[in-house]
Amino acid sequence: MGDYRIDQRNKVKRVPERGYYDEETVFEILDAGKICHASFVVGDQPFVIPTIYGREGNSLYLHGATTSRLIKQLETGVQMSLAVTHLDGLVLARSAFHHSMNYRSVVVFGTAKLVTDEKKLHALKVISDQLVPGRWEESRQPNSKELKATSVLEIKIDQASAKIRTGGPKDDKEDYELDIWAGVVPMVTTYQTVVPDSELRNGIETPSSVLNLIN
Amino acid sequence: MGDYRIDQRNKVKRVPERGYYDEETVFEILDAGKICHASFVVGDQPFVIPTIYGREGNSLYLHGATTSRLIKQLETGVQMSLAVTHLDGLVLARSAFHHSMNYRSVVVFGTAKLVTDEKKLHALKVISDQLVPGRWEESRQPNSKELKATSVLEIKIDQASAKIRTGGPKDDKEDYELDIWAGVVPMVTTYQTVVPDSELRNGIETPSSVLNLIN
Repeated sequence: MGDYRIDQRNKVKRVPERGYYDEETVFEILDAGKICHASFVVGDQPFVIPTIYGREGNSLYLHGATTSRLIKQLETGVQMSLAVTHLDGLVLARSAFHHSMNYRSVVVFGTAKLVTDEKKLHALKVISDQLVPGRWEESRQPNSKELKATSVLEIKIDQASAKIRTGGPKDDKEDYELDIWAGVVPMVTTYQTVVPDSELRNGIETPSSVLNLIN
Repeated sequence: MGDYRIDQRNKVKRVPERGYYDEETVFEILDAGKICHASFVVGDQPFVIPTIYGREGNSLYLHGATTSRLIKQLETGVQMSLAVTHLDGLVLARSAFHHSMNYRSVVVFGTAKLVTDEKKLHALKVISDQLVPGRWEESRQPNSKELKATSVLEIKIDQASAKIRTGGPKDDKEDYELDIWAGVVPMVTTYQTVVPDSELRNGIETPSSVLNLIN
């Protein structure tokens, strides 16, 4: 896998040693996410919208109602940006100034185009696989009315950068002498006990997609 | 508390019954977050950046290095948008089409201005209180060099909307007869066992800010 080209648009300026530009790191962070925050401009007004997505190769897929602002704006091929962020912990330093978080984030730049025809169904499967791997095959497949009401966008990643912070706090040398606690409070997002639908028919077991997710 | 005015910019178009425009709902979602995704435009290029924040009244505070793109762009008073999103669960329907997530999100619109003088220290405390309530008083306070290197922005919330989805899947009537499992996989973000700094001096106990957070 390769590296993304670096210029002013995607260069990590603050704490540059936390920046990564290789596809492997970028893909790993993207693949660990369920939602992204997509950003686009209408007039001089930026919008940022949380939405689910899927990654395959160097492409990201977003979907939405054909009439949604996200779709109507991005399908015109304007510049867009999206971010995926995982919070891994609160970093408490001795000084207020050096408080931080542990995180893994990716910012992507590119333009979108509409996905059509048979590729559209595949792209929807990619999005479904990102949400719950294996669920697509278990589900009732989209019919033509549903496909017509849904638009799918492909964003070929033009540039990206990842930013990662791990480890403990870094204080100024003289602050290590202070009687102030310092450390990390790790954060993790987990799945809880599954809640079957109240109208679930008798005798339908929890499927493998869900068991694989929670175990 | 009041309601935000509704127009094309902040109106929830998709599934409008999930939209809320009252300060109480918006503040509750903002107060439960640790980071936001802030969006702004440079030329025709939208950027989206994850960053910590604090809320007080109808204002949000962001901070960053004086030289950062986020600060340099937003301090000019351009339109911006930011989102805070909490994921509460994966919603698995019988049909691929009706898969969804449970979530609470807020999108804010406004413009920023630099916070100066004595209000700056207060704004930094608001950000600190959002990250770890009570930690500010335990920490070594910012010195003049640190304050000079940090810029703080205030965004008075001009408009906002919240969007909330809760509960189980909603399938098409005829799909309830299918032999397909449906339900919700709840998600929750929790704090894990605290990791004291490896250079922590002997005899310094875990402070009340951390105990309050994790208990």
